[in-house]
Amino acid sequence: MTHKIAILGASGYTGAELIRIIATHPSMEIVALAANSKAGKSMAEVFPHLRHLELPDLIKIDEIDFDNVDLVFCGLPHATSQKVIKALPSNVKVVDLSADFRLRDPEEYAKWYGGQHDAVDLQGEAVYGLTEFYREEIKNARLVAGTGCNAATGQFLLRPLIAAGVIDLDQIILDLKCAVSGAGRSLKENLLHAELSEGYNAYAVGGTHRHLGEFDQEFSAIAGREVKIQFTPHLLPVNRGILATGYVQGDAQAVYDTMVAAYKDEPFIEVLPFGETPSTHHVRGSNFCHIGVTKDRIDGRVILVAALDNLTKGSSGQAVQNANLMLGEAETAGLMLAPCFP
Amino acid sequence: MTHKIAILGASGYTGAELIRIIATHPSMEIVALAANSKAGKSMAEVFPHLRHLELPDLIKIDEIDFDNVDLVFCGLPHATSQKVIKALPSNVKVVDLSADFRLRDPEEYAKWYGGQHDAVDLQGEAVYGLTEFYREEIKNARLVAGTGCNAATGQFLLRPLIAAGVIDLDQIILDLKCAVSGAGRSLKENLLHAELSEGYNAYAVGGTHRHLGEFDQEFSAIAGREVKIQFTPHLLPVNRGILATGYVQGDAQAVYDTMVAAYKDEPFIEVLPFGETPSTHHVRGSNFCHIGVTKDRIDGRVILVAALDNLTKGSSGQAVQNANLMLGEAETAGLMLAPCFP
Amino acid sequence: MTHKIAILGASGYTGAELIRIIATHPSMEIVALAANSKAGKSMAEVFPHLRHLELPDLIKIDEIDFDNVDLVFCGLPHATSQKVIKALPSNVKVVDLSADFRLRDPEEYAKWYGGQHDAVDLQGEAVYGLTEFYREEIKNARLVAGTGCNAATGQFLLRPLIAAGVIDLDQIILDLKCAVSGAGRSLKENLLHAELSEGYNAYAVGGTHRHLGEFDQEFSAIAGREVKIQFTPHLLPVNRGILATGYVQGDAQAVYDTMVAAYKDEPFIEVLPFGETPSTHHVRGSNFCHIGVTKDRIDGRVILVAALDNLTKGSSGQAVQNANLMLGEAETAGLMLAPCFP
Amino acid sequence: MTHKIAILGASGYTGAELIRIIATHPSMEIVALAANSKAGKSMAEVFPHLRHLELPDLIKIDEIDFDNVDLVFCGLPHATSQKVIKALPSNVKVVDLSADFRLRDPEEYAKWYGGQHDAVDLQGEAVYGLTEFYREEIKNARLVAGTGCNAATGQFLLRPLIAAGVIDLDQIILDLKCAVSGAGRSLKENLLHAELSEGYNAYAVGGTHRHLGEFDQEFSAIAGREVKIQFTPHLLPVNRGILATGYVQGDAQAVYDTMVAAYKDEPFIEVLPFGETPSTHHVRGSNFCHIGVTKDRIDGRVILVAALDNLTKGSSGQAVQNANLMLGEAETAGLMLAPCFP
Repeated sequence: MTHKIAILGASGYTGAELIRIIATHPSMEIVALAANSKAGKSMAEVFPHLRHLELPDLIKIDEIDFDNVDLVFCGLPHATSQKVIKALPSNVKVVDLSADFRLRDPEEYAKWYGGQHDAVDLQGEAVYGLTEFYREEIKNARLVAGTGCNAATGQFLLRPLIAAGVIDLDQIILDLKCAVSGAGRSLKENLLHAELSEGYNAYAVGGTHRHLGEFDQEFSAIAGREVKIQFTPHLLPVNRGILATGYVQGDAQAVYDTMVAAYKDEPFIEVLPFGETPSTHHVRGSNFCHIGVTKDRIDGRVILVAALDNLTKGSSGQAVQNANLMLGEAETAGLMLAPCFP
Repeated sequence: MTHKIAILGASGYTGAELIRIIATHPSMEIVALAANSKAGKSMAEVFPHLRHLELPDLIKIDEIDFDNVDLVFCGLPHATSQKVIKALPSNVKVVDLSADFRLRDPEEYAKWYGGQHDAVDLQGEAVYGLTEFYREEIKNARLVAGTGCNAATGQFLLRPLIAAGVIDLDQIILDLKCAVSGAGRSLKENLLHAELSEGYNAYAVGGTHRHLGEFDQEFSAIAGREVKIQFTPHLLPVNRGILATGYVQGDAQAVYDTMVAAYKDEPFIEVLPFGETPSTHHVRGSNFCHIGVTKDRIDGRVILVAALDNLTKGSSGQAVQNANLMLGEAETAGLMLAPCFP
Repeated sequence: MTHKIAILGASGYTGAELIRIIATHPSMEIVALAANSKAGKSMAEVFPHLRHLELPDLIKIDEIDFDNVDLVFCGLPHATSQKVIKALPSNVKVVDLSADFRLRDPEEYAKWYGGQHDAVDLQGEAVYGLTEFYREEIKNARLVAGTGCNAATGQFLLRPLIAAGVIDLDQIILDLKCAVSGAGRSLKENLLHAELSEGYNAYAVGGTHRHLGEFDQEFSAIAGREVKIQFTPHLLPVNRGILATGYVQGDAQAVYDTMVAAYKDEPFIEVLPFGETPSTHHVRGSNFCHIGVTKDRIDGRVILVAALDNLTKGSSGQAVQNANLMLGEAETAGLMLAPCFP
Repeated sequence: MTHKIAILGASGYTGAELIRIIATHPSMEIVALAANSKAGKSMAEVFPHLRHLELPDLIKIDEIDFDNVDLVFCGLPHATSQKVIKALPSNVKVVDLSADFRLRDPEEYAKWYGGQHDAVDLQGEAVYGLTEFYREEIKNARLVAGTGCNAATGQFLLRPLIAAGVIDLDQIILDLKCAVSGAGRSLKENLLHAELSEGYNAYAVGGTHRHLGEFDQEFSAIAGREVKIQFTPHLLPVNRGILATGYVQGDAQAVYDTMVAAYKDEPFIEVLPFGETPSTHHVRGSNFCHIGVTKDRIDGRVILVAALDNLTKGSSGQAVQNANLMLGEAETAGLMLAPCFP
């Protein structure tokens, strides 16, 4: 059975990545592509790398006939997404890739995103889209909120350890490095090649990055108490990839065993042999996440490293993984693409 | 029906690219991987990006049971390849990715590769692997010689025009730019990141690049007279991609019409609208080749531009395309992976 | 004696590069920096790499006291520059880095830049700023028009050969590759890191690039007849550097001897040994231009390659070189910075 | 007065960087360049970017007439350096860029570098070359041991804070990112462009990097007790630059004030306004180090960030700074080169 798919916000990088994945998906068919600012154009004009595909031209959202759509991927900007999704017919399943439904608490939303939420009911209904940890809820959800790409990476490293109680909850540091496509296709001076290439810097230092809202919500829920981590993102001069280095305190072997047990049946999460560390090179363009655990020379200190592709496992791959579950397909359908190296 | 595949020289980039493609191929199964210098290792050690696949460990070539193999991809270095292929049992089909069987004339081989050929008989038997132009011969071939990656790119631009007689055969210039993976995984100072990144240079200037042997052989055969082109390769500070800029003399509209007609039924060759030019960004990681034709401001001058991925369409993708034909499968099987952008 | 310098358009890359050079110049002092859109800011805010220098804050152009200025570098956008320079007091020397005064013929200006010139008198008076070929005129000039960076590179390759009559004037092809900083600090989608890095493409194909106006003007003047070359620029995924590959027809030895003779006393132009080719790596951040001449395998064909840094020798370094002459200083003052490799 | 300089190990990146700096140094003259493996070649062959300089050809070390040399920069590999320096005449001043004399304790040397030291006397005599903290000793030293580039960066961040007692000495984490030139010009697979570009990884995870020997020695000496930090280096896909992110516990304002006070008179160390963070872009090719201090959202947590160029301030720039002091020159002589951005 083929599912009819619409993509809203198809002119951004997550939109393009969805199409790349769906291009070889066995049971999804794209029936509508919307991008208000580029309506009327063909995808070949907006993303020439998709030129070989037979795709509908870009239209405006309100031109879509949603009676003919089974599932919508919504890659619209934050704040816009909630307005649009609220207006969709209730029979359509939705995977949102924006930040609008990640936080369940309207006050937390207001704190991190600086405004009142326009669809508080949906905010409560939405299922948090970290597949490996919300699998059953996602199968039955109508609306799934894709996670932040940094938030996904950090949670893959830390959730099992917080749940198992094997690390000190007050001494968690996450030093994360994200590729430039994580910032989207927006015209900002610091995203120009000449400003970014051949250099490196931190940003949102001091605990101001919005993905902390997700960490706070999720980690506190798991622990049953408030958990606040330190989180410092850095901007990598590469196009794809997140590497997160976590500094935690606990017994290294217990940490490793917990990690192995947590992910032993997961198709996309690979825990490396104890003491090995992953690289973003080796997950590029794929839905895999590689995790390494190393004992520090100081007893009781452990270094965790996770690598994934922010556009795939961190965003559009995760979205397809969730859509597969919502549509009753195999979770891995269309997602076993091998990483593209070199 | 599943075909049993062996890859010789599996620890190089073309080997890795073959495995990446075959990972989602519907009817190929890898039964043996050989790399003499790394025999005994797992592929996850040699190429961690292939960690998720169940693959045989690397062994030595003489450890392979060729009775259990339908087709061999041979990614060994030039000169080694001919020795190994000569010794293979005659029932095994072979796609060679080296330069050893590209030139049919032993004297031309000696001129460009500097030594006598060890398997002159096979040299005569081998079919030149430029699929779009040798399709029928490849279907019946036992041994197919994969083309040079630069040679493929230049031929996609020039073969139809030489065959149609719409350009001046004595005024053909090919200014080509190739990514660093074209040089393989060899330890050379000029391939170090610090030597290559953020810079740009020409090499093999003056007509000394070995792929000229292929151009000479093929273009002269098509034209029925000696054709010698000027060919200058440059080294791009990127990992994948070839862009070839061709300067020819003829009527631009006739050139364009010839190109469109030549490729209108080809699944992997896309001729852009007249006056548009392709980019390597938009073919990365895929088996597609994009071609543009532009009229110069000087009457009678035409600029041709072709873009493809040297590891895929220029090498391992082409190899799988040929293997599909040799094995009676659909030519596009496993090869419709969309380009990976950004 | 210290010369008082003002820079207009100081928030762009050529402005920053001027300041970088002047930072260690023995006889220039920056007394005013103007950038209308960023007036009020410090240079450390706009270009943090200049943080260690004591520099005046950015102001608006009309806030500058030009009585206190000996020489103005004008790095304003095309078309703006002519209006501003026309209004400057006549005692101030001007080096313009825009395109406004490169073309002497108002009709040619209108043809390439699409509008009427606002300062036709100055257009006639301005000296073309290719130092090595207009040295004496520049010494006495009040207004010098900096050349296009591509135009400079192509002229270093071709002027001596056209002047000496050693090449066929109707068969000149210039295949040029320019780094992204050549496009300035403007917010365009194709200049984003994610769009540009790891790829490569041609642009302005077919003879539409504005620097052709300079080539036509200069080459025709030297030859005493109309000379039109073919010129195809490409966009390199690096921040600095131009490599131009020239295809000409003539005797290779004569071409080489002409080149050596032309540049033997030039401090910034290095002609490599016959048959060697330069790389942009080796001129980065410097005012040097490296030139190579190679004989093709086809008799009578010669390949020329030039490498320079578009921001230095192609723009701001050239500007300082010209200013040195206009101010009576040693031509090389402040410009002997060694290239920054790796 | 001009000082006669010899460089041993001139064919590596630190050798090239020394020559780049000395090229515009007012009082140093290079009289000998040694590189045993490339003896007989000109520098233009080994490093074409130095082509414009009049430099002696490369010779073997034992061909140097040390009577004619005032100061030697020794850029030889670890372990080789100590043998060569031991044999130098005692009148020659030496700045060593290797690791051989960084650790004063022979046992610590054996622990981190895995062998007995060949010149234990010199090991005791050598002054640790972190100029800002050993200035007076360096002025009178005959042998100065250049620091590790990572070690320098970490110490700029942490020494003032440890000395002032404003941070918890048992909770120091240093997450450091170093450019590829830090690994030198050696032929290793992981340094190839195709392996490194467009990716990112950690290495020497768990406290095994040799520069920890320097941290242990120096921080313990300052604190008057054993101080062990956690240190995780990462490999950046850029050619130059180190960014170190430090996580410490203490009062943010006290930390900031301590940092400002420590560096207020330093010509090369710039402490940014409270809450700002530096970038490696803005120190590239220069001897500057930019430092930022930010308060975390968690009370008592502070994030420190330092950026410098590993080849300049982290190695060859530091070496010239030390040589200036040893030779009685101004400390900043030849070192005020502005960073090269973009």
